[in-house]
Amino acid sequence: MKQIEGGVTAAKGFQAAGVEAAVKYQNRRDMALIFSAKPCVTAGTFTTNVVKAAPVLWDKQIVEHAPYAQAVVINSGIANACTGKQGLECCKAEADCAAKLLGIPSCAVLVASTGVIGMQIPVEKITAGIEKLAAAKRDTPEAGMDAARAIMTTDTVPKQIAVEVVIGGKTVTLGGMCKGSGMIHPNMCTMLGFITTDANISKEMLQKALREDVVDSFNMISVDGDTSTNDTLLILANGLAGNEEIRAQGADYEAFCGALHFVTTFLAKKMAGDGEGATCLFEAKVVGAASKEDARTLAKSVICSSLTKAAIFGHDANWGRILCALGYAGVDFDPEKVDLYFQSKSGKIHIYGDGAACDYSEEEATGILSDPEVTALVDMHMGTQEATAWGCDLSYDYVKINADYRS
Amino acid sequence: MKQIEGGVTAAKGFQAAGVEAAVKYQNRRDMALIFSAKPCVTAGTFTTNVVKAAPVLWDKQIVEHAPYAQAVVINSGIANACTGKQGLECCKAEADCAAKLLGIPSCAVLVASTGVIGMQIPVEKITAGIEKLAAAKRDTPEAGMDAARAIMTTDTVPKQIAVEVVIGGKTVTLGGMCKGSGMIHPNMCTMLGFITTDANISKEMLQKALREDVVDSFNMISVDGDTSTNDTLLILANGLAGNEEIRAQGADYEAFCGALHFVTTFLAKKMAGDGEGATCLFEAKVVGAASKEDARTLAKSVICSSLTKAAIFGHDANWGRILCALGYAGVDFDPEKVDLYFQSKSGKIHIYGDGAACDYSEEEATGILSDPEVTALVDMHMGTQEATAWGCDLSYDYVKINADYRS
Repeated sequence: MKQIEGGVTAAKGFQAAGVEAAVKYQNRRDMALIFSAKPCVTAGTFTTNVVKAAPVLWDKQIVEHAPYAQAVVINSGIANACTGKQGLECCKAEADCAAKLLGIPSCAVLVASTGVIGMQIPVEKITAGIEKLAAAKRDTPEAGMDAARAIMTTDTVPKQIAVEVVIGGKTVTLGGMCKGSGMIHPNMCTMLGFITTDANISKEMLQKALREDVVDSFNMISVDGDTSTNDTLLILANGLAGNEEIRAQGADYEAFCGALHFVTTFLAKKMAGDGEGATCLFEAKVVGAASKEDARTLAKSVICSSLTKAAIFGHDANWGRILCALGYAGVDFDPEKVDLYFQSKSGKIHIYGDGAACDYSEEEATGILSDPEVTALVDMHMGTQEATAWGCDLSYDYVKINADYRS
Repeated sequence: MKQIEGGVTAAKGFQAAGVEAAVKYQNRRDMALIFSAKPCVTAGTFTTNVVKAAPVLWDKQIVEHAPYAQAVVINSGIANACTGKQGLECCKAEADCAAKLLGIPSCAVLVASTGVIGMQIPVEKITAGIEKLAAAKRDTPEAGMDAARAIMTTDTVPKQIAVEVVIGGKTVTLGGMCKGSGMIHPNMCTMLGFITTDANISKEMLQKALREDVVDSFNMISVDGDTSTNDTLLILANGLAGNEEIRAQGADYEAFCGALHFVTTFLAKKMAGDGEGATCLFEAKVVGAASKEDARTLAKSVICSSLTKAAIFGHDANWGRILCALGYAGVDFDPEKVDLYFQSKSGKIHIYGDGAACDYSEEEATGILSDPEVTALVDMHMGTQEATAWGCDLSYDYVKINADYRS
């Protein structure tokens, strides 16, 4: 497997576009399109929030019941969540408009929205945007980047990746893009993520691969503990790589899952490190746990602790907050047996062991914590299971961005 | 029942003191004492965090096994948490020192600490402080206030209250003080809270009253979602009011519980409103829930949402974040049936109903949200149960205080 340039247009047969449609703000790309020349097997995971945005309800129907999908229309600025019947009618209008312009059925058009909750989407702006998108769509890397830019809200950088992997003697490509930033605490998947691939794979195996993957990728990140109403991760596979169809577990399936996990983990970490107001990517790695589930729970508790996140922002080795966050995670353990280390590219330091602080240098700890990627490594000494979670620090800018997000 | 002046010295037979002992910082009161002339029936609730501070372990022993208690020694500055065997030895040294000076057994001395985790307490400073406390203890309101000041960390105001209630023809007094501010998300009780009463009540009924009360008082507040290692709530009852001993449920017990709930709710709200960096008290009241437990879960989810808290700081009626927080709380409901209102002393406004935004004035909403006490009122229309939770907004100062708390 190797990483290559590009994003959602990297795989054969996929086109994309990103245009300005003034959905909520002027003069920025705010609508994106992904289009496959050939119908795609599709899988998706969606928010577990009881309050589901209209596009989530629309897409769930398609992923579960439609034979295939061929396009995704995305807008930023307005989330189309808590919008009642009018919100669902907007999804239908979007799909109908795209279907007509692209020459495909409405039930092959997925839609996704991100932005402010509670505001209605102006349908005429969206349909005008779709006309622009249909005219602009290309299979170039630039078109993929335009799409990745168009789905951003408070994200500071576009997030995309592509990889190649040989499956059954054929080169298979996977490309993906996502947006994150705020209201990020995915439960089943992230806010908005889209993966395209030319792999030939059955719908069942595609759904299985995605469902099992998110547990250790998108579901292991958090920016602020708020599980969004719009979380959506979609994968479209058009089969153009020409590999023999993956219909069961085995070497081909494993190769596909490996490439998928590389893509999803890359995007998930990008999202965590670019959390609202973040100055660094904060990783919590728990090893020696009694079970995989315990390891996940403990790692997530650490990256979700507001106090720990604020300390990381201050490059302050306030390790007691990490012990505290482990302690209230809901997993039983003996604090006397835990070892805690901080590490980054500047070094690694043993901070806590035998139930008390180690004799470490605060200066060295501050140096390690001043890197843009910082890891808290926790050894529970209770077993062999491990898990990693990714978050970010809590900064003034997080408050600034969210105290008046709507204006 | 009526509220009266004072705090932990209001009830008959209780003395207190607050002195400077330079435990961690110079020139501020950082040690407090509560002393009862007569042995007290004692009950307590403690943190559910797996990582328990040494004083929590010490106090649990006394509350569960000792026949009575007569004094509480408290320090701020250092939490004596994650301090291993040395931390427990410090508790014993504190208790031995106080016991000798006060003429009571060591097992009648409760201890409590709050402050930085992981640092060892300098025992000689603590014992010198206890000598000062023993000499300074008085039964005056000023002495109670000195104690309430001495237990503060990043709290901006001391928090105390006292009430009188007639039980069995006798005037019974309850007084309390607490400290909160950061790492506040109590689970069983708050960070540090102390209630004194001259009520005559059995240990069983006192423990029952406290245990059942915290579910709807201290356990319903959160500043930052971090459940501390030190959470401790103690109540000491010396029986000097002379009422017939409360040994079972009935009118006397109900009267006592009513007064206790007034005291605990008052202190809990004070703690929430004085959360680190807070500019307002943010209340979430959920009515019409299917069960009491659902109501509590939903209300707490709202006050714990970082995004909602940042919006409250910005006086921004970003109600979608409240719907979102209800949605991921883990309680099933139909978003179309929920009604949401904002209210404060400036008025009440209907924000969301029938699955979408109401036609409200943003200006009016901002006015309501600019008060120092703001309520989000949610009607689930699913039943008759209700619950209220208290938190605060998320401000720049929260980040500032916590990015470099230790320096």
